[in-house]
Amino acid sequence: MISRVRNVVNSVMGGLAALPQPPERPQPDDLELKYPYCRPEFLQLSQDEIQVSADHVSRPIMVPREPNRLPWSAGYAEVINAGKSPRNEDQAATTQLSISRPARTPNRNTNKANNKGNNGNSGEDNLQQEAMAEETEEMDELHFTYFGVFDGHAGTGAAIMASRTLHYHIRDKMAEVSELLLPVTYEDQNHPGTGSNHGSGSGKPSSKVITKEHLIIGALERSFCEMDSQIERERLTFRITGGCTALVAVFVLGKLFLVNAGDSRAVLCRNGEAIPMSRDFTPESERQRLQYLAHLHPHLLYNEFTALEFPRRLHKTDLGKQTLYRDHTMTGWAPKTVTEDDLKFPLIFGEGKRCRVLATIGVTRGFGDHDLRVYDSHCLIKPFLTAAPEIQTYDMMEQRFGEDDFLIMASDGLWDVVANQDACNVVLDALTQFHPQDPNRYTSAAQELVMHARGTLQGKGWRRPAEDKPASGDDITAFIIPMYHYGNQHLSSPTLLSESEESSTREMETETEAEADPRPDSLEP
Amino acid sequence: MISRVRNVVNSVMGGLAALPQPPERPQPDDLELKYPYCRPEFLQLSQDEIQVSADHVSRPIMVPREPNRLPWSAGYAEVINAGKSPRNEDQAATTQLSISRPARTPNRNTNKANNKGNNGNSGEDNLQQEAMAEETEEMDELHFTYFGVFDGHAGTGAAIMASRTLHYHIRDKMAEVSELLLPVTYEDQNHPGTGSNHGSGSGKPSSKVITKEHLIIGALERSFCEMDSQIERERLTFRITGGCTALVAVFVLGKLFLVNAGDSRAVLCRNGEAIPMSRDFTPESERQRLQYLAHLHPHLLYNEFTALEFPRRLHKTDLGKQTLYRDHTMTGWAPKTVTEDDLKFPLIFGEGKRCRVLATIGVTRGFGDHDLRVYDSHCLIKPFLTAAPEIQTYDMMEQRFGEDDFLIMASDGLWDVVANQDACNVVLDALTQFHPQDPNRYTSAAQELVMHARGTLQGKGWRRPAEDKPASGDDITAFIIPMYHYGNQHLSSPTLLSESEESSTREMETETEAEADPRPDSLEP
Repeated sequence: MISRVRNVVNSVMGGLAALPQPPERPQPDDLELKYPYCRPEFLQLSQDEIQVSADHVSRPIMVPREPNRLPWSAGYAEVINAGKSPRNEDQAATTQLSISRPARTPNRNTNKANNKGNNGNSGEDNLQQEAMAEETEEMDELHFTYFGVFDGHAGTGAAIMASRTLHYHIRDKMAEVSELLLPVTYEDQNHPGTGSNHGSGSGKPSSKVITKEHLIIGALERSFCEMDSQIERERLTFRITGGCTALVAVFVLGKLFLVNAGDSRAVLCRNGEAIPMSRDFTPESERQRLQYLAHLHPHLLYNEFTALEFPRRLHKTDLGKQTLYRDHTMTGWAPKTVTEDDLKFPLIFGEGKRCRVLATIGVTRGFGDHDLRVYDSHCLIKPFLTAAPEIQTYDMMEQRFGEDDFLIMASDGLWDVVANQDACNVVLDALTQFHPQDPNRYTSAAQELVMHARGTLQGKGWRRPAEDKPASGDDITAFIIPMYHYGNQHLSSPTLLSESEESSTREMETETEAEADPRPDSLEP
Repeated sequence: MISRVRNVVNSVMGGLAALPQPPERPQPDDLELKYPYCRPEFLQLSQDEIQVSADHVSRPIMVPREPNRLPWSAGYAEVINAGKSPRNEDQAATTQLSISRPARTPNRNTNKANNKGNNGNSGEDNLQQEAMAEETEEMDELHFTYFGVFDGHAGTGAAIMASRTLHYHIRDKMAEVSELLLPVTYEDQNHPGTGSNHGSGSGKPSSKVITKEHLIIGALERSFCEMDSQIERERLTFRITGGCTALVAVFVLGKLFLVNAGDSRAVLCRNGEAIPMSRDFTPESERQRLQYLAHLHPHLLYNEFTALEFPRRLHKTDLGKQTLYRDHTMTGWAPKTVTEDDLKFPLIFGEGKRCRVLATIGVTRGFGDHDLRVYDSHCLIKPFLTAAPEIQTYDMMEQRFGEDDFLIMASDGLWDVVANQDACNVVLDALTQFHPQDPNRYTSAAQELVMHARGTLQGKGWRRPAEDKPASGDDITAFIIPMYHYGNQHLSSPTLLSESEESSTREMETETEAEADPRPDSLEP
């Protein structure tokens, strides 16, 4: 995506992008790389193979040597761009992790019936604790399966760091609420967040019901912000170039959580039908958010840009004439008389893949880009970007999945040229050629899908011969994740997963009666 | 809704709401009323009847004396609240208006082929103009049908003013783009907003395709803002009390535009199925927008409120303990340690109908409230409210409508106790009792619907006997608008409406070729 950034700077400003860094810090070139350039670990590529994978002329499609290294033998394939950047700026990761309930401390006040203070546990209480611990022993671990796609721009650093680190942030943020996520016990009822609550002077309790799903979503949201903060901190001591989008799938507690900050996309194929599982965040889809920020904090435009959108770039000859415009409150267009202010470059400009924020960047969510500035200007881009994701959940227990039900997660290099349903059809066709138990089944389908988008080199350009249309010259990354492994295990098995299934449906209801003086409790004694 | 405002101020602050006005302006009590209290004009109520309609004990359901006074003999019914405010604070309006294309000025440069300037029309051009005017004579007017529901709070002034005025703002804003809305001629191609456009240095044209639908939406959005601005201005010279939500339906160009700023609701019933046509805006549904504003402009909280949301009100005893919270970036919940700042009253607090912004108001969009402050504080509410509506469009030409297809538009007094589908069923049942051509058909159905929500007085309270559930004690207002009048006229008739049908599907495509120096043009010569 670096070339997308540079292209627009070139075209708009007429010069090569040499994004200035704040002078008070060491220049990135002076710093040690946080991570050397690499491809996803599960591909098991040697340094030579990494070299080969970066051939912009042959554009070899890379797939895992051992499909079993991916959870559920999920499929994966990737291909480098057609020359827009020297390296493949996409990254990917997948893993299975677990969190466990912190060990109980003997003097911890855990019994709801005990209102006498933090050190008042009786022998009876301790016995009760032990009995409950025994009953719930198997429920004291929470397993989750994770897939991530990161589409980098203006460098490979942020995407590599996210692919190496984000899942640990997710694990840590889940661990912070492990006592609430793991089976509800007598303790949970008295937690300040979920326990008995009070209205404010009305004498009636007023509190929110917070479910485990809310806590998982909160943990995912916080982990994305923490990932971005880590890059912001560590870029002062390491070289972490560029920025990246992030699309993450987490299977936990009987549900699929699709976490999206960027323009990669997840599509579920169920009974042959494509179901979008994420929304693309682009300067066009986020226009009103960005215009609202500029409206509230106009100094972020450095007097160089206008927050209004116009149908086209206005020129001096338009002064005093009527034009159409829209601001942060509008989805339609209305007329206005052109003033000097309207001649400034618009905050959002261009259409489709050419649409940019501050004439510089084509993505609006993700990690990194902390030092990215408008060419030849002090105007920072980062305030307009956010690491905050949008999360969609899908209940895996609602139905039984077949072997031809799958989730596609792919970078925009795929979706730029392949429609959702077409992508599902390509995968479905490929799956028919393999036995359902063949571990290569989903990887071969991922390879077919990436090949479908990459096309073949015909003369000077990459084209898709089947449709006789241009192919994707971008980096392309795609996971094909079979749904039946998690979904059906979950439906039938009486083991760990079905326990979390049970607990996922159990809400942490608040008490209906207010307590005059709720005993304070704390996750960390 | 005034009592909702007062109740929460009482319960939260422990005193009666006496909202202070800025001292530099005349007190509202000193000012003349902009409009005296009234009920919708089409009810044709005498002053005596207005008195009778305000009986909080009998709560008579008021319907139009002559249903034919409403467009398409649409149904309408209303009832006053059960005592929460002395007057019915809901208002309603309906009308049919038209705009026409401004008369052509003889020296206006209207011929695209003529690039020589504003005074260069040749005799040939004038002949051509006349010929086209003759051809398109019938298309030079645009008719629209308008329905509005306004739910007032803390006074009746804003709702009355909106019911008397908003449709004129809509007409005026549409008239501003009449040259673009009315049939595309040679002129439209050269308008700065829709004509030939330029990229910015890339040498390639870059412009947006703007449709008539975009222009209608823009006019509706601007008219809502203009309505609020008018109240803001005129409250300095007239007494205009309180605020109001606004829900508007406009039938024009073969489409239905549902314009919503508040928690009134529109539901389309088609083939017996309820289809939501608006989303409710409440402190809960708008939490993230409000928190984002407070995050960017923390001074709006006057150091009295916190932008974070907690599951319950925190107290001094919670200091240093863990709680759950969410901020403007989050839909889930995450843990944090309670600090002094967290003990401030939350910006958004309460659940469901008891949820308030700044402990004061239960609505987040609409008109008025410019002087509303938190009780015993300088903290203004208005910055958190917006007049900007959300607009949904529905293509009336896609299908043929039957006599039992209708649109319900009603204030929250109805929806608090009746689900969307139940409301449709009540209306459908009522419709069966009338001949399709009976002008009382939809009014009787509206009456049934309002009666269903109001219930009957049983002992001390209003209850709905059929379900044995509490009835609505709020003001209730409901339109039942038959869909076939507009929809089918539009599908079959070769008259004015089918012309606008045609023009609504014609997009004002921009030219594909850039002009080196586009001739400036202007809507107002």
